[in-house]
Amino acid sequence: MMLSGELIVGAQRQRGGAQAFQAIDPQQDRALEPVFYEADAAQIDAACQLAAEAFIAYSRTDLAQRARFLRQIGENILALGDALIERAMQETALPRGRIEGERGRTLGQLNMFADVVENGAFQGVIIESALPDRKPLPRPDLRQRLAASGPVAVFGASNFPLAFSVAGGDTASALAAGCPVVVKAHPAHPGTSELVARAIAEAVAQCELPEGVFSLLHGTSVQSGSALVKHPAICAVGFTGSRAGGLALLQLAQQRPVPIPLYAEMSSINPLLLLPGALRQRAESLAQGFTDSLTLGCGQFCTNPGIVFALDNADFDRFVQHACEALRLKPSATMLTPAIARACEQHAAALATLSGVECLARGQEKTGPNQGQPQLFIASARDFIAETRMQNEVFGPVSLLVRCASQQELLTALRVLQGQLTITLQLEAQDQPLAAELLPLLEQRAGRILANGFPTGVDVGYAMVHGGPYPATSDAHTTSVGATAIQRFLRPVCYQDIPAALLPQSLQN
Amino acid sequence: MMLSGELIVGAQRQRGGAQAFQAIDPQQDRALEPVFYEADAAQIDAACQLAAEAFIAYSRTDLAQRARFLRQIGENILALGDALIERAMQETALPRGRIEGERGRTLGQLNMFADVVENGAFQGVIIESALPDRKPLPRPDLRQRLAASGPVAVFGASNFPLAFSVAGGDTASALAAGCPVVVKAHPAHPGTSELVARAIAEAVAQCELPEGVFSLLHGTSVQSGSALVKHPAICAVGFTGSRAGGLALLQLAQQRPVPIPLYAEMSSINPLLLLPGALRQRAESLAQGFTDSLTLGCGQFCTNPGIVFALDNADFDRFVQHACEALRLKPSATMLTPAIARACEQHAAALATLSGVECLARGQEKTGPNQGQPQLFIASARDFIAETRMQNEVFGPVSLLVRCASQQELLTALRVLQGQLTITLQLEAQDQPLAAELLPLLEQRAGRILANGFPTGVDVGYAMVHGGPYPATSDAHTTSVGATAIQRFLRPVCYQDIPAALLPQSLQN
Repeated sequence: MMLSGELIVGAQRQRGGAQAFQAIDPQQDRALEPVFYEADAAQIDAACQLAAEAFIAYSRTDLAQRARFLRQIGENILALGDALIERAMQETALPRGRIEGERGRTLGQLNMFADVVENGAFQGVIIESALPDRKPLPRPDLRQRLAASGPVAVFGASNFPLAFSVAGGDTASALAAGCPVVVKAHPAHPGTSELVARAIAEAVAQCELPEGVFSLLHGTSVQSGSALVKHPAICAVGFTGSRAGGLALLQLAQQRPVPIPLYAEMSSINPLLLLPGALRQRAESLAQGFTDSLTLGCGQFCTNPGIVFALDNADFDRFVQHACEALRLKPSATMLTPAIARACEQHAAALATLSGVECLARGQEKTGPNQGQPQLFIASARDFIAETRMQNEVFGPVSLLVRCASQQELLTALRVLQGQLTITLQLEAQDQPLAAELLPLLEQRAGRILANGFPTGVDVGYAMVHGGPYPATSDAHTTSVGATAIQRFLRPVCYQDIPAALLPQSLQN
Repeated sequence: MMLSGELIVGAQRQRGGAQAFQAIDPQQDRALEPVFYEADAAQIDAACQLAAEAFIAYSRTDLAQRARFLRQIGENILALGDALIERAMQETALPRGRIEGERGRTLGQLNMFADVVENGAFQGVIIESALPDRKPLPRPDLRQRLAASGPVAVFGASNFPLAFSVAGGDTASALAAGCPVVVKAHPAHPGTSELVARAIAEAVAQCELPEGVFSLLHGTSVQSGSALVKHPAICAVGFTGSRAGGLALLQLAQQRPVPIPLYAEMSSINPLLLLPGALRQRAESLAQGFTDSLTLGCGQFCTNPGIVFALDNADFDRFVQHACEALRLKPSATMLTPAIARACEQHAAALATLSGVECLARGQEKTGPNQGQPQLFIASARDFIAETRMQNEVFGPVSLLVRCASQQELLTALRVLQGQLTITLQLEAQDQPLAAELLPLLEQRAGRILANGFPTGVDVGYAMVHGGPYPATSDAHTTSVGATAIQRFLRPVCYQDIPAALLPQSLQN
């Protein structure tokens, strides 16, 4: 399967008109063939115009057809076979098992949204029939439904080349909602993106949908992303990435002549709270489980446990000791991109310089380019409370243990904690009174609260929330994973006394 | 019932520490007793702190208790009796029937949200039980619910002293969601606000809720509103008012260290589309109905029909002629405030100066201070398409007829139309093909689409949408009227493997 390096603008493949770039194999630190080209302004405009032209027809597709389309995308991705797996491995340095698992998750997401579409409940239909005799005023016939927002721009994430990228959760939920999608591929995996985009474009043709339902753009520069967010045809944006990147795009989205929502999943340090009973009973296994979760995929997960809180006692000392031992055995591993590896090193170094932060242990030395080395730090809650920068995410296998002198100090530390995707409680039965006291605070701080697990591994289902208060995301009222992610791309419309023949199908009697 | 001019900060009444001001009787153009005082920074802070302290306890109230509280507020408002009606009439120049009707609507809203709370479905519970044997990975127990966002700031609107003010839709929906509320009363009706606030504070005490569940602040200056929006304890804001005011507060909300959502209902000109068959059959009655809707309450409704589109033909000429005749009979009427009356005159004058705009008719001359005079303008669609300023809302009994040379021109005019709260179609059976063509466009432009009615008169029920694309509101995904308004003050939280004893009640098996 030859890669062309081209953009996919509706039904057309074309070479991007702007700068050339190549993917990097981070393991070998060398450029991969072929050469890709960024989209120029006219190409970005063309993709958005096509999406706008496709919108009305696509948003009115019959739900069965839309569900078929989503499933067809999955089938086409599977049909790409090993070529997709191998290219993704080359571009990301992620191992085969991970990429294959991620492909399964991507297909699972598409199929779940196909089920959601077929079920139809996502349209939120509310019907109030006319009450002509109501006093003091008659009631008109009122029918509410959730309608598709309009064309959506999706920014692929670096760390999930399949599940959060071209055909990932944002694309699947936007297409499920009835919105055409223009994807800006992440420049770290343009080949993987091209293959998946072909699978989608093929499904568009197979399902006889308007070509503008999907386009793929390449871009490495800030300008290409900005032009997409600022395009008047774009009605909403899905983004997963860094806080700096998310906030820059958010500002653009808010400052447009017509502002639009930007759903950015940005940064989270996913606290673990080790309650005393749990530490007493299983300090060693907690230390092992934490270290495994921290170093999984070289720590390159939004839900990586970047901070741990515990009360200072001998049980915590055992945890610390075992965590250090476990961490020292962990190898350094190749990160997704040279830039991510550099940032991990820099951000860990910045953490190390903060007053009161001490390095406890490091994993094994680096053996190749672009590797991230596991690192464990410790600080007192007092210092943590005084220094907001300890809350900055270090994207990689780096975590900070926070030793709390008292329950009161733990509570104070949690009160200054910024918004998170997840907070995890490790607890035993005797910890439940303390947990009950903490829980209302945790609910205000996170989108997902776990007990006795680890936050890495986000189940894609109906009840999942992958969201949370700022700065975890730009909109705590939404999730980017799970069935309810579709709601980001829907808005309510009420029909008053509209003749039956004109009502959308979902609102007919 | 003596007014004290005081703030209500939790259980305490206290004189505001900042500037003194008085309400104006717009009919007499004279100041009303007593003197009110704006809240100073410490008082704003105290109200927000109390709300933050009340949040956890209030958000965890049992739903039956919360519903009782909402109904008790309604009963207490009713118990204020005629003193409330008379003060509201004095402060707004609105007639008795209107204020009494609005009180009914306010009680209806509170009772509807009590029903919504009791029903419990608003919590959006989704439960996925653990599947320990699922392959390739076991599924944890996952439970999602919508949790209260946190303390909410509400800005009372000038034009609905009861239904969109201290105990209006924003307050009722926030309290229903489990959020404490800090209201900044609209300075045009501080006495009405004080009375209603007392009714709420009394209900807080009667229902033995934490005092911080409700506070009332006064403020006429931009600073007092800004300080409220910027207060770190505030998690969301409800606002109904001008576009300039809404956008200024929106910017503050977005630029906070922790940004928060601001739900602003700002401006809409609520187009009427008079389709050819409807004009042919009932040009005269349409003209009368339109003129009545336009001048109702001196045009001081968010849903006032400020623009009319029709194809240029003899039927439209009949409509124009009858509308002019009907309008000339309409009296000028006292507006809500001197500032609103001035702005109406200025904005109508600004509309009149735009190229291609011609004044067709005026209502009867003003007979007293602060009156608004009905005015009808006309322009060609060609001029309308070229001049965005024709879309600026004139708050008052002023409307612009737009004459379209062709269906194509009508479509183009609709394409440049900004976001609206409502769009109304007047149609007969023979207009349905054209209506079907227009409808997808209208769905993109408005939160509510009506047939053969007039947009004034917003039914408060389960299916209503009082929202719409920018600049009608700051968030097209929400409504400020109707049962689903509660969703603005809720965010999803997922509980993973949390022991049953710790789960919120709604998520227990």
